[in-house]
Amino acid sequence: MIEGHGDDIYRYGGKVKYNFSSNICASACLGEVMQYLANLPELPGSYPEPYPASLEAKIAEMEDVAPENVMVTNGATEAIYLVAHAMTGSVSAIVSPTFSEYEDACRLYHHTVRHVNCLSALPADADVIWLCNPNNPTGKVTPISELRSLVAQNPGRLCVIDQAYADYTLCRVLDAREAVNSGNVILLGSFTKRYSVPGLRVGYAIGNARLLDIVRACRMPWSVSNIAISAAHFLMSMGGRAASIDAGALHIEALRLSDALRDAGIEVADTDCNFILCRLPGSRSACELKEWLVDNHGMLIRDASNFHGLGAQHFRVAVQSPEADDLLVNAIKEWM
Amino acid sequence: MIEGHGDDIYRYGGKVKYNFSSNICASACLGEVMQYLANLPELPGSYPEPYPASLEAKIAEMEDVAPENVMVTNGATEAIYLVAHAMTGSVSAIVSPTFSEYEDACRLYHHTVRHVNCLSALPADADVIWLCNPNNPTGKVTPISELRSLVAQNPGRLCVIDQAYADYTLCRVLDAREAVNSGNVILLGSFTKRYSVPGLRVGYAIGNARLLDIVRACRMPWSVSNIAISAAHFLMSMGGRAASIDAGALHIEALRLSDALRDAGIEVADTDCNFILCRLPGSRSACELKEWLVDNHGMLIRDASNFHGLGAQHFRVAVQSPEADDLLVNAIKEWM
Repeated sequence: MIEGHGDDIYRYGGKVKYNFSSNICASACLGEVMQYLANLPELPGSYPEPYPASLEAKIAEMEDVAPENVMVTNGATEAIYLVAHAMTGSVSAIVSPTFSEYEDACRLYHHTVRHVNCLSALPADADVIWLCNPNNPTGKVTPISELRSLVAQNPGRLCVIDQAYADYTLCRVLDAREAVNSGNVILLGSFTKRYSVPGLRVGYAIGNARLLDIVRACRMPWSVSNIAISAAHFLMSMGGRAASIDAGALHIEALRLSDALRDAGIEVADTDCNFILCRLPGSRSACELKEWLVDNHGMLIRDASNFHGLGAQHFRVAVQSPEADDLLVNAIKEWM
Repeated sequence: MIEGHGDDIYRYGGKVKYNFSSNICASACLGEVMQYLANLPELPGSYPEPYPASLEAKIAEMEDVAPENVMVTNGATEAIYLVAHAMTGSVSAIVSPTFSEYEDACRLYHHTVRHVNCLSALPADADVIWLCNPNNPTGKVTPISELRSLVAQNPGRLCVIDQAYADYTLCRVLDAREAVNSGNVILLGSFTKRYSVPGLRVGYAIGNARLLDIVRACRMPWSVSNIAISAAHFLMSMGGRAASIDAGALHIEALRLSDALRDAGIEVADTDCNFILCRLPGSRSACELKEWLVDNHGMLIRDASNFHGLGAQHFRVAVQSPEADDLLVNAIKEWM
């Protein structure tokens, strides 16, 4: 794994007061989840289902597909590694800059990795296409018409479309039934992002059953803990109260913050989500800014220099409250 | 994964009153663990350490080795799969009958698998030797002198010694420092077994740092959840109160239960632990006995017919209270 993913708050002890480094909005329901778990003291004392069929059935219902079209994993990360494993030795085209785990997983399983910067530049020999949509770290969403063309025009290629951030945009993404019917798409979903529970580790893949069976064959048993399975069931039963991301409001704030950062002399990429890819002017270092912000203002941003295709000037921020965002802009101005 | 591992209690709803199917003793501390977690509502809201270094350091201290000699995993199962991955394409000798995940992991990573029934029958071409010690399902412990000979006489082979059940026997097993110093041993340890928390998914591997680094290179990040890491720290801080297995008393009860089962006409293998491998006489089916016991007495045993080298007559039981064990013997007599 690369050093320095987002939300490396564990490195900074109690120093961080404002966490702009993670794209995930804080949930108000976590206390309730933990109280629910506390009332189930038997949970850690029993093996989980070897494969979380109960949760797969519930997600299938939510996504309007059959249970065999869903594979629950230890975070979406496990799904990424399982797909890479199932496709060992493939040529993988990765639409970059993007989440680095696609490349790490592909390299672990001996893929030939080709980075491309847009879907129109796909190499002819690609067996697998990895697309993060909405994309991390840019927050851009590929238009639904382009997605459908991609899938229709590449029947012999596997399209892995990571929709972990789907709840953070108002833009249309591929729906589960389309993915299942296509036969060449695996969609990735994330409880981490939807319910703001990165500490739990629950994700899933959706796809045609025949396709998913090839991936399932690479699974180890018991990879999702009993506590994670129960918490995931509970979160789903809470419905909109637990998954209460206001993508529209977040995006409006992201546009406002983008403007303020531009005014401060930062280069800011367009976003369709709640997070923003930024570039410092000249040769100034995002890494230095990050350390300075933590030390002087207790603010954590994401140094984005380790995304393939980005440089030492890049960083990423996710919007917080307008007040916190204003403080960030002022702090960056001070540093500049 | 094979169908029908032990503790498949999730299949039987509330029908099971006595669970002889899992080798793990119930813990009295689970409520305390869950209460501790409930007081940390922020846990699910933050990413865990990508690799649980804080826990690795604490286990290293406990085992009197350096932190780089410890790799914490999502249950010992993840360690098994990672070792198999790191050794892709090897010839693996598996001392059988034993835990089926060694073979499953080896096959997933294209090993040539050779089952042997004792250490003196190791094939000349084996690259990796898999030994479960104490062994599941037999409960037998390989004498320490034989273990040391194995390690010393096979410097060019990797010895994977799964000591998950070490706390369930009074017999001597390999200690962590011996494993680290040898350079060709990876020891597997299990929070599941020591603290009776199979629902949590925390295990670890111990070995020479150079050797372990090869395995670490196959890891994905965040495979151990924040909740699991915190619970594991808490369990370790509780010391003997959380890990309170009375191996001596359990073994005495296992010997008593073995005698009673033999008197009932069952063939019983010698055990050094709290669990017993049994064989029904003639052509009677362990699977039928299992279903009958659940339906008529709410008792769950482990059908052991799916262990490589065992047959339809084999089952495994772990001792419970003497009263419960007597009820089991009476129920089996009734069925016979």
